[in-house]
Amino acid sequence: MPTKEIIRDWFIELQQHICSNLEEADGRGKFQTDAWERAGGGGGISRVLTHGSIIEKGGVNFSAVWGPTPEPVMKSMNVEGGSGSEFFATGISIVIHPVNPMVPIIHMNTRYFEMSNGTWWFGGGIDLTPHYIDHDDARHFHQTLKAVCDRHHPSYYAEFKKWADDYFFIKHRNETRGVGGVFFDYLKETNDFTKASRFEFVKAIGSAFAPLYTFYMKKNSSLRYSDNEKRWQQLRRGRYVEFNLVWDRGTKFGLDTDGRTESILMSLPPHAQWVYNYQPAPDSPEQKTLDLLKKDVNWLV
Amino acid sequence: MPTKEIIRDWFIELQQHICSNLEEADGRGKFQTDAWERAGGGGGISRVLTHGSIIEKGGVNFSAVWGPTPEPVMKSMNVEGGSGSEFFATGISIVIHPVNPMVPIIHMNTRYFEMSNGTWWFGGGIDLTPHYIDHDDARHFHQTLKAVCDRHHPSYYAEFKKWADDYFFIKHRNETRGVGGVFFDYLKETNDFTKASRFEFVKAIGSAFAPLYTFYMKKNSSLRYSDNEKRWQQLRRGRYVEFNLVWDRGTKFGLDTDGRTESILMSLPPHAQWVYNYQPAPDSPEQKTLDLLKKDVNWLV
Repeated sequence: MPTKEIIRDWFIELQQHICSNLEEADGRGKFQTDAWERAGGGGGISRVLTHGSIIEKGGVNFSAVWGPTPEPVMKSMNVEGGSGSEFFATGISIVIHPVNPMVPIIHMNTRYFEMSNGTWWFGGGIDLTPHYIDHDDARHFHQTLKAVCDRHHPSYYAEFKKWADDYFFIKHRNETRGVGGVFFDYLKETNDFTKASRFEFVKAIGSAFAPLYTFYMKKNSSLRYSDNEKRWQQLRRGRYVEFNLVWDRGTKFGLDTDGRTESILMSLPPHAQWVYNYQPAPDSPEQKTLDLLKKDVNWLV
Repeated sequence: MPTKEIIRDWFIELQQHICSNLEEADGRGKFQTDAWERAGGGGGISRVLTHGSIIEKGGVNFSAVWGPTPEPVMKSMNVEGGSGSEFFATGISIVIHPVNPMVPIIHMNTRYFEMSNGTWWFGGGIDLTPHYIDHDDARHFHQTLKAVCDRHHPSYYAEFKKWADDYFFIKHRNETRGVGGVFFDYLKETNDFTKASRFEFVKAIGSAFAPLYTFYMKKNSSLRYSDNEKRWQQLRRGRYVEFNLVWDRGTKFGLDTDGRTESILMSLPPHAQWVYNYQPAPDSPEQKTLDLLKKDVNWLV
């Protein structure tokens, strides 16, 4: 049975694997590394790449933190551990903001949570946020994720795709963050699933990240774009900020557990814009993208 | 005794007064006006000025909303009205982002809240967020506010200045948003205060806004600045976004009561930047400003 040490070590390996693949695809940018400790227990390794040829700002963070469970965490996690319980949490978290607006923003998070009473679960998610939605790109993303899911359980893709639609949703804008992907949480042991099988699924999602994103880096980073498209990118990055600061549970968890602020907020874009009441022109590529930022789109077809 | 209609009408007048004063000081920018209705009851008038000669983006919003009290509002407001109670809320809310980084960002909010069980209170606040702290400017701000407070009650300034330090605080950065000002809430009727006297105080704070901000517009908007200072402005605007989206109760109240998103988020800056782990040079003006973003600074001396 995978112990928390085995899981933690696998996440560290995954971080290294992803960073070296992104550096290779970028060709210029190099990740800088900051190790940090958490006062309450544990710490992490933040790796951030800026001013690459393709990646404008990207972070790949690992952390393993533990200690007495903070009250807001107990509440948000629906943990019935009572006071005095200890938690252990480890995972990696990634957000990449590319230079070229034709390359999508991507996010992935995989995490493992364990309480001192023996409860444990896995969680995670990966979602794609194109500034301009290209249907073929979205289909490739979902088909790849579906193939990974299907190798582990026939119900996974449908369930976790819907969960992503609901989670990566900017409620106050009534729009999804992007074309979604998969999101899952509280993956525990049941009659159908061993701890080992849950871990294998999380590993498979994690391993899918580098091939998926480097595909878009290679395919789209030399597409031409104008100032208008760069401006739209910055407006969409503004929406990304809104989601992360208002709705994202991972951000809230980090800030509530006295995580390292610079690591938590590495997800924020290098530049963002807000224009009051901005309305794209009818039938413009920007409006067409907005029209597709809906839940329950079947991206497989 | 001031009724909710009298208070509402005064806020509408204040909005007009402030907008015309800001337009006059700017000399070029004109406010555009959007009236909106809230599905649950009430609505507002949003006034936004962009691309002025001094004001890059500024919003002066009025709203008067009512209806069944939403559950999250009951909780956040510490209201013991029980379910089935109705609320009425009216106020104005202002944020101004100037072009020139030597001109401070300013925010003011004044509000009146009334429940169907007869409970009512006033709240509000005004705070200054210089990109570069100038001690004389900060002193002028606090001396002006103290003079207004002192005309209404000798305890007001000390109490509300401390409240502002605690409220306009970016907890995850351990820094204040700017040089503070005053913040007050739940100003009710007591042995010492009539409703009329509370309202007079709120009116005096509201009336202080236009002379205060146009003073900084005139004094600082022709100061020279470089690309470096413009960049620092955008980084500080990033912090402003963090405060408003993570900590500001007014923003949360608006989003929770299905307020008009574009009006609530008019407070966000036109452009913002985030640089991973940015550290100003020692002894730089930027570092000196950071060193002053602390609670409990006595700005009067």
